[in-house]
Amino acid sequence: MSKPNAFYAQSGGVTAVINASACGVIETARRHRGLIGRVYAGRNGIIGALTEDMIDTNRESARAIAALRHTPGGAFGSARYKLKGLEENRAEYERLVEVFRAHNIGYFFYNGGGDSADTCYKVSQLSKKMGFPVQAIHVPKTVDNDLPITDTCPGFGSVAKYVAVSTREAALDVESMAKTSTKVFVLEVMGRHAGWIAAAAGLAGQSRREAPHVILFPEVPFNEQAFLARVKQSVEDYEYCVVVVSEGAAHPDGRFLADAGTTDAFGHKQLGGAAQVIAQMVKDKLGFKYHYAIADYLQRSARHIASATDVEQAYAVGRAAVEMALAGENSVMATIVRKSDKPYRWAIGSAPLGRVANREKMMPRKFISKDGFGITASCRRYLEPLIRGEDYPPYRNGLPVYVTLKNVPVAKKLAQQFVL
Amino acid sequence: MSKPNAFYAQSGGVTAVINASACGVIETARRHRGLIGRVYAGRNGIIGALTEDMIDTNRESARAIAALRHTPGGAFGSARYKLKGLEENRAEYERLVEVFRAHNIGYFFYNGGGDSADTCYKVSQLSKKMGFPVQAIHVPKTVDNDLPITDTCPGFGSVAKYVAVSTREAALDVESMAKTSTKVFVLEVMGRHAGWIAAAAGLAGQSRREAPHVILFPEVPFNEQAFLARVKQSVEDYEYCVVVVSEGAAHPDGRFLADAGTTDAFGHKQLGGAAQVIAQMVKDKLGFKYHYAIADYLQRSARHIASATDVEQAYAVGRAAVEMALAGENSVMATIVRKSDKPYRWAIGSAPLGRVANREKMMPRKFISKDGFGITASCRRYLEPLIRGEDYPPYRNGLPVYVTLKNVPVAKKLAQQFVL
Repeated sequence: MSKPNAFYAQSGGVTAVINASACGVIETARRHRGLIGRVYAGRNGIIGALTEDMIDTNRESARAIAALRHTPGGAFGSARYKLKGLEENRAEYERLVEVFRAHNIGYFFYNGGGDSADTCYKVSQLSKKMGFPVQAIHVPKTVDNDLPITDTCPGFGSVAKYVAVSTREAALDVESMAKTSTKVFVLEVMGRHAGWIAAAAGLAGQSRREAPHVILFPEVPFNEQAFLARVKQSVEDYEYCVVVVSEGAAHPDGRFLADAGTTDAFGHKQLGGAAQVIAQMVKDKLGFKYHYAIADYLQRSARHIASATDVEQAYAVGRAAVEMALAGENSVMATIVRKSDKPYRWAIGSAPLGRVANREKMMPRKFISKDGFGITASCRRYLEPLIRGEDYPPYRNGLPVYVTLKNVPVAKKLAQQFVL
Repeated sequence: MSKPNAFYAQSGGVTAVINASACGVIETARRHRGLIGRVYAGRNGIIGALTEDMIDTNRESARAIAALRHTPGGAFGSARYKLKGLEENRAEYERLVEVFRAHNIGYFFYNGGGDSADTCYKVSQLSKKMGFPVQAIHVPKTVDNDLPITDTCPGFGSVAKYVAVSTREAALDVESMAKTSTKVFVLEVMGRHAGWIAAAAGLAGQSRREAPHVILFPEVPFNEQAFLARVKQSVEDYEYCVVVVSEGAAHPDGRFLADAGTTDAFGHKQLGGAAQVIAQMVKDKLGFKYHYAIADYLQRSARHIASATDVEQAYAVGRAAVEMALAGENSVMATIVRKSDKPYRWAIGSAPLGRVANREKMMPRKFISKDGFGITASCRRYLEPLIRGEDYPPYRNGLPVYVTLKNVPVAKKLAQQFVL
């Protein structure tokens, strides 16, 4: 049998640097042509494997693959699609084995967050449970920074930098105008259950007088009275107030401040509108003029202001995944291990997927200030290195030059189609 | 009598580069110490003059003033405050003369948009109407790009670049996820009556298939049926649709898509929420999953992604204003004159304030595509040079280093306070 091919796919919400991980995987595989055949990318994540809809990355030039390092979004398409358990949907696993066998796939690299780690874990069990030898390695990625074991998740550092920079900039704007215009500015950021992104906004200021003056975390039940008192105090003391609210901020009974009532494929509630709720509350109860911004996808696609540390780590976990596979490993995730805060030093490690899948890492309570509205010195020590360094993409005519791959499909070998 | 001092103030909504104009004014004045005494900045625009609340910029180091060039927001505080006509409120003018005389102010530099040009025009009439010799020069500034005569308005190029870059980035994100997630992404941008900022988003894509697929301009009455048909077509053709909506987009009867019902000091309606209205409409009528972002202040304070062309022009109009004053001019605005598109060449010109104040420059109809949802080649030719070049601020620990001035007050000389 010829040397095995590799399958790589992107899963879940994409980031500014998930393609940097793809770049790490593909470039490293290309450096080991004697051991790895071709790298096939799943179109739209695991769906590409199930439907035998794969992209032959060998058809892309070295230059195009290198450009993935500075291109946001998911170059091969991503998807939110969770494999059921083997017992619940055996057909899916049989199909995966069938596709992998037809295309001689021996390595499975899955680039995603917690839900995706679960999919990767299930694939890693195929050799044991279905007798098909495939090594599955997870490449961590999530702006939510909520994967366990790894010190941080590629994708987070860049959104953290975006949010900290934007908060600092918008605060200067609001402060300038406060005398006769907006007194309270609310910025809504992502973070369904964990307040990591909201916390990153805290880096924008060094002292109590600097913005953000209030951060609303999902981890801290919303206390309307204390919140309004803090906003009022801030406007009295500094003439303005900047509030950063996580989309996942919730009332003491668990209800989200804003609940759009719809759910995604993983069954998570789709959120949006917390900023508006907060801003309106400030207007109604305190009478202050407000503005609010909702960064939404802008924050997680902002490759133009990516963290150099994040880009480097995203690439490194991609490269490490291939090296782990070649070292014979299976069912593991490449991780970032922090060696020291100052100077910041880190290394690549690994974690068993069984201990990663379906676990969310919340912000430790010691990272949130006693009053619940800010971050502590230890949180700052943790976050600071992650946003360090700028890694600007190339520009042409004032716009960043992002690559669009050819994405040439791999010829299908199976007669049967698979219906999702 | 000793050489006259200069008064400089920032007015209206601030931008990513208004401080670059301040830098141009102050540095140029410092180069002419034999002719201009001190530069006093009004704290919060014209309010600083009326209340004799001025800042002595001579107390700032050359280094701090130089750093204004890369610092967003308004370093001296800005304000929305419009002088009434001389006949309506003579007391205001008498007060201005009193303050200017007390502090030997011979030059008045006002940095703002259309409403502010009106204030500057009124001040320029003081010598004629009140017998007090002051030369008033307007320094153009507005993200709305709606000042007449000047080819563009400093502040616009940078917000245009931010919006074009963000649209390109978010589009890559949405496209990656469209298979199983969001189909329609809506980005709301500023622009109360003119669609310049929305138009700039059009630079993100080169062809019909590239985002943005739909732009909703204030200049084009909203046509729900045509809009929904276009969104549906885009999702059918490309699997996703990116919509950029101006906050000023309106129904045929003139009602804004979103109208918060409140007004600012100039009597303008305060808008916000057009994105949500549009997104909800798409969901209700077409059933597509949506996300929306509201850039709000983020777009106009984003110095981290400022246009180098814009920064250069913002500085140049500040410098030119001082040079015009020294050449004996009064009641004029420094303008940007376009000499050619390709290669892009421009020069400084001037326009009489009487022809500037209270006029809004709309997008020419020839800049908007026939169907009303996009920009034309001539619009592209106009916009492209304005976003060209990157002018990154310095960074420390992952964050841009913006200057905060000491803002030392000028000792008051008048016994009487002035109540606004």
